[in-house]
Amino acid sequence: MFKRMEEIMIEIPDVEKPDANAAAAVHELLGGKFGEMSTLNNYLYQSFNFRSKSKLRPFYDLVMSITAEELGHVELVSHGINKIMQGSTSPGDPDKSPLESVKDARFSYPFLAGAQGAMPFDSMGNPWTGANVFNSGNLVEDLLHNFFLECGARTHKMKVYEMTDHPAARAVVGFLLVRGGVHVVAYAKALEVATGVNVTKLIPIPSLDNRKFNESRKYEEKGVHTKLYTWSDNDFTTIDQIWKGTHPEDGSALEVIHGVPKGVPIPEAPPLDEEFAPGISADEFKEIAKRLKQSGNIKE
Amino acid sequence: MFKRMEEIMIEIPDVEKPDANAAAAVHELLGGKFGEMSTLNNYLYQSFNFRSKSKLRPFYDLVMSITAEELGHVELVSHGINKIMQGSTSPGDPDKSPLESVKDARFSYPFLAGAQGAMPFDSMGNPWTGANVFNSGNLVEDLLHNFFLECGARTHKMKVYEMTDHPAARAVVGFLLVRGGVHVVAYAKALEVATGVNVTKLIPIPSLDNRKFNESRKYEEKGVHTKLYTWSDNDFTTIDQIWKGTHPEDGSALEVIHGVPKGVPIPEAPPLDEEFAPGISADEFKEIAKRLKQSGNIKE
Amino acid sequence: MFKRMEEIMIEIPDVEKPDANAAAAVHELLGGKFGEMSTLNNYLYQSFNFRSKSKLRPFYDLVMSITAEELGHVELVSHGINKIMQGSTSPGDPDKSPLESVKDARFSYPFLAGAQGAMPFDSMGNPWTGANVFNSGNLVEDLLHNFFLECGARTHKMKVYEMTDHPAARAVVGFLLVRGGVHVVAYAKALEVATGVNVTKLIPIPSLDNRKFNESRKYEEKGVHTKLYTWSDNDFTTIDQIWKGTHPEDGSALEVIHGVPKGVPIPEAPPLDEEFAPGISADEFKEIAKRLKQSGNIKE
Amino acid sequence: MFKRMEEIMIEIPDVEKPDANAAAAVHELLGGKFGEMSTLNNYLYQSFNFRSKSKLRPFYDLVMSITAEELGHVELVSHGINKIMQGSTSPGDPDKSPLESVKDARFSYPFLAGAQGAMPFDSMGNPWTGANVFNSGNLVEDLLHNFFLECGARTHKMKVYEMTDHPAARAVVGFLLVRGGVHVVAYAKALEVATGVNVTKLIPIPSLDNRKFNESRKYEEKGVHTKLYTWSDNDFTTIDQIWKGTHPEDGSALEVIHGVPKGVPIPEAPPLDEEFAPGISADEFKEIAKRLKQSGNIKE
Amino acid sequence: MFKRMEEIMIEIPDVEKPDANAAAAVHELLGGKFGEMSTLNNYLYQSFNFRSKSKLRPFYDLVMSITAEELGHVELVSHGINKIMQGSTSPGDPDKSPLESVKDARFSYPFLAGAQGAMPFDSMGNPWTGANVFNSGNLVEDLLHNFFLECGARTHKMKVYEMTDHPAARAVVGFLLVRGGVHVVAYAKALEVATGVNVTKLIPIPSLDNRKFNESRKYEEKGVHTKLYTWSDNDFTTIDQIWKGTHPEDGSALEVIHGVPKGVPIPEAPPLDEEFAPGISADEFKEIAKRLKQSGNIKE
Amino acid sequence: MFKRMEEIMIEIPDVEKPDANAAAAVHELLGGKFGEMSTLNNYLYQSFNFRSKSKLRPFYDLVMSITAEELGHVELVSHGINKIMQGSTSPGDPDKSPLESVKDARFSYPFLAGAQGAMPFDSMGNPWTGANVFNSGNLVEDLLHNFFLECGARTHKMKVYEMTDHPAARAVVGFLLVRGGVHVVAYAKALEVATGVNVTKLIPIPSLDNRKFNESRKYEEKGVHTKLYTWSDNDFTTIDQIWKGTHPEDGSALEVIHGVPKGVPIPEAPPLDEEFAPGISADEFKEIAKRLKQSGNIKE
Repeated sequence: MFKRMEEIMIEIPDVEKPDANAAAAVHELLGGKFGEMSTLNNYLYQSFNFRSKSKLRPFYDLVMSITAEELGHVELVSHGINKIMQGSTSPGDPDKSPLESVKDARFSYPFLAGAQGAMPFDSMGNPWTGANVFNSGNLVEDLLHNFFLECGARTHKMKVYEMTDHPAARAVVGFLLVRGGVHVVAYAKALEVATGVNVTKLIPIPSLDNRKFNESRKYEEKGVHTKLYTWSDNDFTTIDQIWKGTHPEDGSALEVIHGVPKGVPIPEAPPLDEEFAPGISADEFKEIAKRLKQSGNIKE
Repeated sequence: MFKRMEEIMIEIPDVEKPDANAAAAVHELLGGKFGEMSTLNNYLYQSFNFRSKSKLRPFYDLVMSITAEELGHVELVSHGINKIMQGSTSPGDPDKSPLESVKDARFSYPFLAGAQGAMPFDSMGNPWTGANVFNSGNLVEDLLHNFFLECGARTHKMKVYEMTDHPAARAVVGFLLVRGGVHVVAYAKALEVATGVNVTKLIPIPSLDNRKFNESRKYEEKGVHTKLYTWSDNDFTTIDQIWKGTHPEDGSALEVIHGVPKGVPIPEAPPLDEEFAPGISADEFKEIAKRLKQSGNIKE
Repeated sequence: MFKRMEEIMIEIPDVEKPDANAAAAVHELLGGKFGEMSTLNNYLYQSFNFRSKSKLRPFYDLVMSITAEELGHVELVSHGINKIMQGSTSPGDPDKSPLESVKDARFSYPFLAGAQGAMPFDSMGNPWTGANVFNSGNLVEDLLHNFFLECGARTHKMKVYEMTDHPAARAVVGFLLVRGGVHVVAYAKALEVATGVNVTKLIPIPSLDNRKFNESRKYEEKGVHTKLYTWSDNDFTTIDQIWKGTHPEDGSALEVIHGVPKGVPIPEAPPLDEEFAPGISADEFKEIAKRLKQSGNIKE
Repeated sequence: MFKRMEEIMIEIPDVEKPDANAAAAVHELLGGKFGEMSTLNNYLYQSFNFRSKSKLRPFYDLVMSITAEELGHVELVSHGINKIMQGSTSPGDPDKSPLESVKDARFSYPFLAGAQGAMPFDSMGNPWTGANVFNSGNLVEDLLHNFFLECGARTHKMKVYEMTDHPAARAVVGFLLVRGGVHVVAYAKALEVATGVNVTKLIPIPSLDNRKFNESRKYEEKGVHTKLYTWSDNDFTTIDQIWKGTHPEDGSALEVIHGVPKGVPIPEAPPLDEEFAPGISADEFKEIAKRLKQSGNIKE
Repeated sequence: MFKRMEEIMIEIPDVEKPDANAAAAVHELLGGKFGEMSTLNNYLYQSFNFRSKSKLRPFYDLVMSITAEELGHVELVSHGINKIMQGSTSPGDPDKSPLESVKDARFSYPFLAGAQGAMPFDSMGNPWTGANVFNSGNLVEDLLHNFFLECGARTHKMKVYEMTDHPAARAVVGFLLVRGGVHVVAYAKALEVATGVNVTKLIPIPSLDNRKFNESRKYEEKGVHTKLYTWSDNDFTTIDQIWKGTHPEDGSALEVIHGVPKGVPIPEAPPLDEEFAPGISADEFKEIAKRLKQSGNIKE
Repeated sequence: MFKRMEEIMIEIPDVEKPDANAAAAVHELLGGKFGEMSTLNNYLYQSFNFRSKSKLRPFYDLVMSITAEELGHVELVSHGINKIMQGSTSPGDPDKSPLESVKDARFSYPFLAGAQGAMPFDSMGNPWTGANVFNSGNLVEDLLHNFFLECGARTHKMKVYEMTDHPAARAVVGFLLVRGGVHVVAYAKALEVATGVNVTKLIPIPSLDNRKFNESRKYEEKGVHTKLYTWSDNDFTTIDQIWKGTHPEDGSALEVIHGVPKGVPIPEAPPLDEEFAPGISADEFKEIAKRLKQSGNIKE
């Protein structure tokens, strides 16, 4: 079971600089084969199907807890996408074509199906699919997969970062590079514990250091790359049998933190009349307010 | 952000009565168009993209909190599927064909790609896809969609219930019928608040009462169908402005509960040598145990 | 524009001999790459996009009119599928598993998503897709495609016929073999007119004669294979400039008939309580009947 | 069975103002999840699989007849798309790159696979799929679905209208907004008759009135939104037991018309040499004309 | 079994004129329904499943040998695509957005998933799929399919040629038009031998001559269109029983050549630091060089 | 460029023991995500897009040459599948349902679309797709992927081996386990050379030795697991800078062999009249033989 908080992980710059194609690129990090939907669902299903957990408790705890962080990543990158599209259009008479400015955007669904919000699709408008989930049940093979998956995810983030300087994209992707980097190391460490082979020596793949990215460096300087959270009130505490020793890149000491990091409030998205979202008129708001305050059933 | 607990919602009968095709049928409730992956992701993305939340707070809280419950449903139905497959095969010399008993199963991936575990696929082996997510951004339209989606999901559950008497399937589906029924009512109530139209009168669709299903009735008799949880430590408390009054079917009083229901421990899945899961020999377990206990890096 | 009649092309035997896997096989002829959905939509889109129709009128008329026949084929094969599934299950208490008899059916959607009715999917549960439509705009190439498509469709029908002796399957497939054979010849004749090359000499592909199939022979003996209809009250009459001369297989004279062939009433499908279809109780029927008879709005 | 006429529903402006990306957007209304292919096929399959039609005749007649109108909508929106692309390119020596002007169009198939004609694909080049069809067999659930589907389809039309001022797009979408609005009301009325709940009060969703769109208002002023056709010579006449009373938005009286509305001739599409469509030279036209006039077989 | 050479069929101009959308268009000829992946895999699977080869040896040899040529076509068009993207970006500090120039490219995968290299996808970013393979097993039907497929492939090539004047695109497409034209004739000849019907008279489809394309004409003038290779050291020599007589378009004598044509060296692709490809630093190259030279295992 | 031989790698037992569902399982090894189509196309595209080959020659040669071996694996597993289906049906009058014995097979395409031959689809009838190809361009990442891919492919083979004792399946899968094992080691060795990390120590994944499989052991005893071929007449000889030292499992010396291994003749597939394959009658064979012998054009 899961609990939710009305918080996201970091503050996203509130700059009005709409860029539909940058939002499309960031969608690759959400609904793409190597996007957050993939990391989330791989670990979610691996956690469901984990065998012999009593003997392999720290590995189980690792997969269980990282899943929860991935939910927050899916959430964060979605909010980032929304900020990148913000300001794309303005309200107007339908016969004045208020959506014309996005007609040439190369990913049309957020404008036609949605109201300029994130969708579980990739940069080409192909939906995320369950076919992206790998779960052999074999511990070493699943860890190897996860290590590879995180390396692939990291590469995609690096490329998207290089593709757009939109402040919201940079902020979100820079942060996720660091946290994704934590998962790269976590699965490498897990492989080392499982096999005795020093897989962490392969890190980083690609060999470019996160610190070469301004929006990542600022987090690494604060040690964000050394902390793994249990993402739980009481469970998953044995991850410190895997997340231990030092970081393979800079040698700093690794630390497990019980619970969750401090987040920030989720920003409010403004109405978008030209997309009929939420599509409630001033009068209707009043009626709704009344019905919300009413006790008992609305209708008998 | 989300937190996780090592608990699932109900106890699943631990009967060894493997039925690969029943497991396939229950997969429809996991990765199908009307499965738990769909309800989860619809509300997840609607929660990300919600507009004007300050003015529509209870609706926002409703979608935010139900999302968290759906995560637990995805988890529960997955564990149910695993129990249905339990005992399908036994370990054996590869040249004795230890997997032959599942060769004719009509959904082969859990046996070939996985180790007899749940996958985000439907009953025909088609993957869940992001194309199943609807999010217009228009409040009334999204609520109407959710109401319809929950009715469709309910119908599928009723049919799967009728398709197999496997105790694990019955237990999980019977419980989910009740909780899914809560969501049917919740979105109908929300539509009533949003529009003033008495949509709850349409309930139940199909018109067969949950109490006609033994495994659902026992929960309804305990009032499980009248409770909506915030699934949060501190947030989403305004859902009581929507979840109020009485249940449209039996007139019992509705109740909002802050936090989460009490769950049960997640059962341990046994090793499956013939699927190489987790694929760790006795000797390897010992080595791993040593490395887990070791402090600092495994390798320098 | 199109008009509809409450008729299907032939009577389908009303034998209760449910065979879910035979119904799956016949679905290949509905939603498969070479199924009726494909012939329908190929000609539908070719008719929309036809260029220079004034100079190529008989070709245009051919594609326009055959489209209408294909609609009837989609309809007929769907009704055939329904008859094959008829009797699969009986009503019963949900806790008696009234749908258990179809749990092992290899195509599950008609039982879980539908109420034992035809769906635009193929024999493996893959949906029909617009990717099956070919329309280059080049007259000769499109005709060549259609000729090939009809040969492929014919082959599939022959194989499905050989796969099951269900009377409803045989009746429908036998008839469609003959009518599909008409379309094979029609596109071959069109190619001959367009190019002067005697393509009809390639017929039949595969070389087995329709008369080797009992359920086809009876139609050929009545000359059903020699008639092409305009499927219109007033239009598409120039198809006689293509559909002329003799049949390449038996030399009988070809004939164009203005209008449509005589059909038979569409049979009524019985209720299926265990699938909640239509899911209307006796009391509800009465209420509905009242509301149907009421004049003016149901509600104010 | 169906009959066809060489007519489309309205005249489409013949303005040469090629806009490939506007054509892509309108494709969403053709092959998208909420496009005309979806409304058509949902009702087509629901009509095939309808149970207990004798007791539920007016509902059956409604679904049977609307299907036929949807065929005309698929046709109309396709012709609209073609007009929007008209003039995109000019004939020329292959080495002069006569198709270069469409190289950057974001939907390439109509230029590479087709000859600048409509295809059963959506705005992102994803094919229409049978997975878009819903048919539970439960009357209330199917009607609820259809009501939701039409609301979703309406929203998409409103957004596409706002995205381009191309006269052909505006004309077609404006008209379809009105006719789609009729179907919204029709399914809402049907739900009211089936359940007694005043679902029509939810209309319009989104709440913006069709009359806010110039190209829709002109039809509403003529009462086009109050008429439902049987789309048949003789059948489906009981729809007047559902389509009765007044329009929920403006209170005007509803009217059932037996038969079909008056259409307009289908315009001729000019040849496109640079796409090899139809690809017939002047000399070849002569040869073809001769063969068309010839009596009997072309070749012996 | 197959052998490989480090050669491609022709030299590709090494012009730096990056055009991401032209590369997307050429991808249609690689991973599209009528692309080289389709011709390759159709013949590959037909060759695996060929029945009665001893009696139909020349047909078998034809399909076996053409498969090998298609492998070279897949390779050539991929290298062509790479040349078209060459120069798209330059190395740079990640915070300078070195990939920004390709942000608006309408096919994003080669930039985000790949390192500006060809992928088995079409011009819309849809993956090539096995559903594009046709293999009925019926000799005449498969040949008819192949003839149609090659005509369709030819049409696509003609359109792509007209869409871009990029020298690498022109060179590759012009050459493939000629070689694809050989396959059109080969399957037509095979159909003639199999049936006695003069199918070659249909050629060319579309009727525009290859010689109208500068980059094709130069090959036809050298007789490249008259030669069919066995693509084998010792096998498939009976293709001369099909590839015989004269070319249907210009009457020149056809010739079978044992073995393969002379190719050219495969050019080296330069590193792309901004895509981390190959991502090896100068120091790392040195270390790698050492390990390459080391005898025995790298690690013990 | 590639050359072809009329040989496959090993002899496949010619036992008539048709098992459609075993053939379906083996299809997972052909068209599945971890099937031979995937290994083939991953290396094919990586070889096209390889950067800096002059500096990384042995890695390039490795990928280039293994591609050619994979072609032979696709071929071998296809022939294996065909043998498993052999004898499924017998010729017969269409009205005697000669294909009825395969009506319940869970993978229907080989019987309806094909003539009981292999198809590029997986065990659930989902087509192989280009989305299975990974090619980041980063050397280490691509090698890591390939190592993981081969481990996953190995696991699938082990499971399929355990699922059926069909002699043809066993023979083919047992052999491919050994050759696939060679590729596991090859990519691990390549990673070691590229990074200096002793990745070969992870082998085998899963930890079960190939020698536990009778049909693999016999090849390992002959040293088949120690040999890597260049699959070329003259090229790719530097793979001995990677394939060197000893095998990580048994310490035997590794050996590079220039050229290809000795194969065996490809067996002839018998005609299947009930599938119309090849569908040539005795008389037609005679006519065809005449036309094959004829010199010059068949028709003028």
